[in-house]
Amino acid sequence: MRQRNKPWADEYLQEKNHIVINDPKSNKGNWNQLFNNNNPIHVEIGSGKGQFILGMAKQHPDINFIGIELAKSIIVSAVQKIDKESLANVFMLNENAIDVREMFADDEISMIYLNFSDPWPKNRHEKRRLTYERFLNQYQDILCTNGEVILKTDNRGLFEYSVVSFSQYGMNIKELNVDLHAIEDETNVMTEYEEKFSAKGQPIYRCKAVFEK
Amino acid sequence: MRQRNKPWADEYLQEKNHIVINDPKSNKGNWNQLFNNNNPIHVEIGSGKGQFILGMAKQHPDINFIGIELAKSIIVSAVQKIDKESLANVFMLNENAIDVREMFADDEISMIYLNFSDPWPKNRHEKRRLTYERFLNQYQDILCTNGEVILKTDNRGLFEYSVVSFSQYGMNIKELNVDLHAIEDETNVMTEYEEKFSAKGQPIYRCKAVFEK
Repeated sequence: MRQRNKPWADEYLQEKNHIVINDPKSNKGNWNQLFNNNNPIHVEIGSGKGQFILGMAKQHPDINFIGIELAKSIIVSAVQKIDKESLANVFMLNENAIDVREMFADDEISMIYLNFSDPWPKNRHEKRRLTYERFLNQYQDILCTNGEVILKTDNRGLFEYSVVSFSQYGMNIKELNVDLHAIEDETNVMTEYEEKFSAKGQPIYRCKAVFEK
Repeated sequence: MRQRNKPWADEYLQEKNHIVINDPKSNKGNWNQLFNNNNPIHVEIGSGKGQFILGMAKQHPDINFIGIELAKSIIVSAVQKIDKESLANVFMLNENAIDVREMFADDEISMIYLNFSDPWPKNRHEKRRLTYERFLNQYQDILCTNGEVILKTDNRGLFEYSVVSFSQYGMNIKELNVDLHAIEDETNVMTEYEEKFSAKGQPIYRCKAVFEK
């Protein structure tokens, strides 16, 4: 996503510390305490401007959502939206997801969303893809039994790679869609990218996979 | 495939018994003897008019091919093509694939092709799909270690169902293509259907899956 420099971002994120959790590692294993309930926790890695996580949080008040986004100038848009709606079931983390296992305890998470992740198309960048085995290994730890990874993308290469990567890792493919918008699914919350690409008639791919625990 | 009545088909197939093997069950475990070599054997279930199996047989003289097609009026077209080219590495079976385990011994086959199989879109017909678990169970027996099932289709529903079915059965997804013709693959031999549908700009889907033995 194109990033504009926003010099006020730092201060703004500090100020909104009821939404943007500083030092998330210190909350490892205690997220339910922070949400003040025992609802399941869903994590989105790469939340961008937050349209998906906001839509999900509104649609599912009985689920807690945590969005991770590294880019300061982008996460501020998500935080502004959440702040405006006064939603109590969303936190945002301005972090690099490479250390996701340090932020969540074993079995603490019920669902991981990877929406329109960077495809890193070059072979030599395979390790950076969020569905590379090193990441799957972390997801496996933090996900509870029957916890799912849900990948949604318009990128053919990333999709094809990811389904194979899930399977090679030993995950079960529970659901596959090679043209998500060809079916009626009113529960599908669209990301900004999804709106843009599907409007162009591009197919959107989705895969749900689970670890066998 | 639309079938025209061909009253001469029966007699023709009997006549071409060097290509169309009668009573294939009696050859179970002895196919290599019939081919008169020890080359790997690939099976296509639902060969239609034979364009795929003929193209493959010409491209791979060191592989033996067996095409199965139930419809008499359709298999004759395949047999005519094979006869014309005098290919020694193809046999055709005018059989129902429901009994594929009765025709081949354990580990006798290296590869199974399912090309543009009938999608049987209604839920109540799930058991008829060639990727339903009852069929996978048969493929598992007749395939040797690392033997592959390769599904190619333009049918979204069948493709999505099949990938999940493979995975749920415990197979490994080795390769996935959600738009086969978007990549250059000179080794890809097209079926009649594939030519027709891809010419219309429809994506062709392919999945390669293996059993863990």
